[in-house]
Amino acid sequence: MTLLIDNIGELVTNVAGSGEGGPLGIRRKAALLVEEGRVAWIGPARYAPAADHRLDAGGAAVLPGFVDTHAHLVFAGDRAAEFAARMSGQPYTGGGIRTTVAATRAASDAELRGGVARLRREALLQGSTTIEIKSGYGLSVAEEARSLRIAREFTDETTFLGAHMVPAEYADRPDDYVGLVCGPMLAAALPYARWIDVFCERGAFDADHARAILTVGQAAGLGVRVHANQLGPGPGVQLGVELGAASVDHCTHLSDADVDALASTRSDCLCADGGHPTTVATLLPGAEFSTRSPYPDARRLLDAGVTVALATDCNPGSSYTSSLPFCIALAVREMGMTPAEAVWAATAGGARALRRDDIGVLRPGARADLLLLDAPSHLHLAYRPGVPLITQVLHSGVPQCQP
Amino acid sequence: MTLLIDNIGELVTNVAGSGEGGPLGIRRKAALLVEEGRVAWIGPARYAPAADHRLDAGGAAVLPGFVDTHAHLVFAGDRAAEFAARMSGQPYTGGGIRTTVAATRAASDAELRGGVARLRREALLQGSTTIEIKSGYGLSVAEEARSLRIAREFTDETTFLGAHMVPAEYADRPDDYVGLVCGPMLAAALPYARWIDVFCERGAFDADHARAILTVGQAAGLGVRVHANQLGPGPGVQLGVELGAASVDHCTHLSDADVDALASTRSDCLCADGGHPTTVATLLPGAEFSTRSPYPDARRLLDAGVTVALATDCNPGSSYTSSLPFCIALAVREMGMTPAEAVWAATAGGARALRRDDIGVLRPGARADLLLLDAPSHLHLAYRPGVPLITQVLHSGVPQCQP
Repeated sequence: MTLLIDNIGELVTNVAGSGEGGPLGIRRKAALLVEEGRVAWIGPARYAPAADHRLDAGGAAVLPGFVDTHAHLVFAGDRAAEFAARMSGQPYTGGGIRTTVAATRAASDAELRGGVARLRREALLQGSTTIEIKSGYGLSVAEEARSLRIAREFTDETTFLGAHMVPAEYADRPDDYVGLVCGPMLAAALPYARWIDVFCERGAFDADHARAILTVGQAAGLGVRVHANQLGPGPGVQLGVELGAASVDHCTHLSDADVDALASTRSDCLCADGGHPTTVATLLPGAEFSTRSPYPDARRLLDAGVTVALATDCNPGSSYTSSLPFCIALAVREMGMTPAEAVWAATAGGARALRRDDIGVLRPGARADLLLLDAPSHLHLAYRPGVPLITQVLHSGVPQCQP
Repeated sequence: MTLLIDNIGELVTNVAGSGEGGPLGIRRKAALLVEEGRVAWIGPARYAPAADHRLDAGGAAVLPGFVDTHAHLVFAGDRAAEFAARMSGQPYTGGGIRTTVAATRAASDAELRGGVARLRREALLQGSTTIEIKSGYGLSVAEEARSLRIAREFTDETTFLGAHMVPAEYADRPDDYVGLVCGPMLAAALPYARWIDVFCERGAFDADHARAILTVGQAAGLGVRVHANQLGPGPGVQLGVELGAASVDHCTHLSDADVDALASTRSDCLCADGGHPTTVATLLPGAEFSTRSPYPDARRLLDAGVTVALATDCNPGSSYTSSLPFCIALAVREMGMTPAEAVWAATAGGARALRRDDIGVLRPGARADLLLLDAPSHLHLAYRPGVPLITQVLHSGVPQCQP
């Protein structure tokens, strides 16, 4: 079964050098053939092969699906009241995480699964064809395993974040909690997790604890990610680089040494199997928006040669958005990114942050994950903020929206 | 034919004192009956009358439809490239308006109508059940009349904005252009316009020109609105108050005297037929977002007792968003408004800015313009930025979204 997409206004491939727009590799008058869930062919529309089905893009821009690499979707309850209080002047400290932990532990599997399904669907219809899902609201052996087991029903990109916060019952003995995370909790998480992550921040886990947890997770075969330098300067970014993390996330408060460390990981290879692997700086402007905090300086990172990704940080406390289009608009308004850089960061950048080369790109062999805009150009994602522009999403070649 | 909406999580009525939430008048466990396009009854769900049809809100929040009082929808072309250049550092001066004037003049009626229809539909599906539409990209007698004639096909709230910019052909004789606006252009616009507006700003029209145009329009029976104090301090706000304008729009750069003047128009009456009519400050944060400018200080206005509305300023140059949910989220993040104040401003505030009491409110006799959120509370409009939360819109009682 083949599907030909033609009458494309602008095809963003993210294959640098294959068209206009530098890294975006924009092709015009192109068509794209999908077969068996993969991109089978891209070329000039006038040479398009015959296909079983045809999707007329109507002059729309076609982009790779978004790759959202930072989402906390396994939780119960919401924190709308905390949000409203914060907007009246109360600062964000991350302490509200415990509210969600209590609600999550009290929820049934079906409730948690229903919540993930709702948000996964919401994100997909906004173009996120790949999503990473973290645990981190369970914070016990059984609850972290349960969160990851449920997350795994929705994505292969699951992350064990037992070290999201020291739970209340371990408040006066954090060393014991770190021991639990490194031992039985990690063992219980392993069957369901691809990645390990730590919230390395004052009030959460310090450098020594974070290194201990990430190192043992890495030894067990998990890839490394770090919540780093969100609320203030800290050791997270350099620790991530030291450990070869695929990504350090947030990066709001960076020293020159942090930027240099990230830039030192730059490599021309796209994935982990050649050269020094890149540690991506994944920026999460939804969190700064919803906590009324200063934004990370993407321009500084880009100018230093750091690979930048954008993700939503979707969670009920500090960033309850599932919308990468919204994050793209913020990145352009607030973080000094051009529209092209922001679109790349939300697609190819996300793929780098997961060390994947089969997504975030449109070329033969890549997964047929793509989206159609109600607009002729990728520029409109930033130019038309807040407008639901995504009219169709293909996930492994399967259309997700009503035609 | 009657329609009963029940299983409502939270009903925002904007009838102050009728429930919780102060001005929002939030009712719980309420139901709402629609008959002949109007709200016929609101009361406890357990006392709901029988109805021909039922809409189960599924626990969703139900709000009055948004009232968008500032939209420039009659135009051709887009300015995505100008936007991208601005995001790379070029300042916004309003000069790009002439680009759109040239494209608009060159477009057919069908092209202009198609563009308005597309954006009107887009706004409606995002909850804007009332929209004001301005002319202002024609800038000749025939072209302004044409723009208003087309606008009138979509809304009764049409605004003659011949004084949007001095067109290139009058660049060296602005007095002559003002004479044209006050004479034949106004005459040609009158059959299609309810309001008159002037872009009173350095580089556009000064106080004397603005007063001359607004005064003659007012004498001809049009209501007054003013584009005021957007790009810098200026006379627009106080001129608007002097003339009894329904609204002064933008209000980004205000002196204490400007704020005092607006506060002096405050009245407890809702509409024009009693007491001193209120001049509303209509804030347009989409413009500041997309021109990377400082936001207006809504908190200062609210604390002074000024009535504040929120609108999109939807236009292809400085704010190409049709989304009031996006503007609500910005107002909370950037302008010091609480979520409740922002929701009120986008509904009841907009109604005040049009001197209407049949919209922006849910009570018996009001137009059955309302929206359902995929959320239990109005808070989520700010708490979940960028997420398309609006699942159903009723316009004069007629459902607009697929069930």
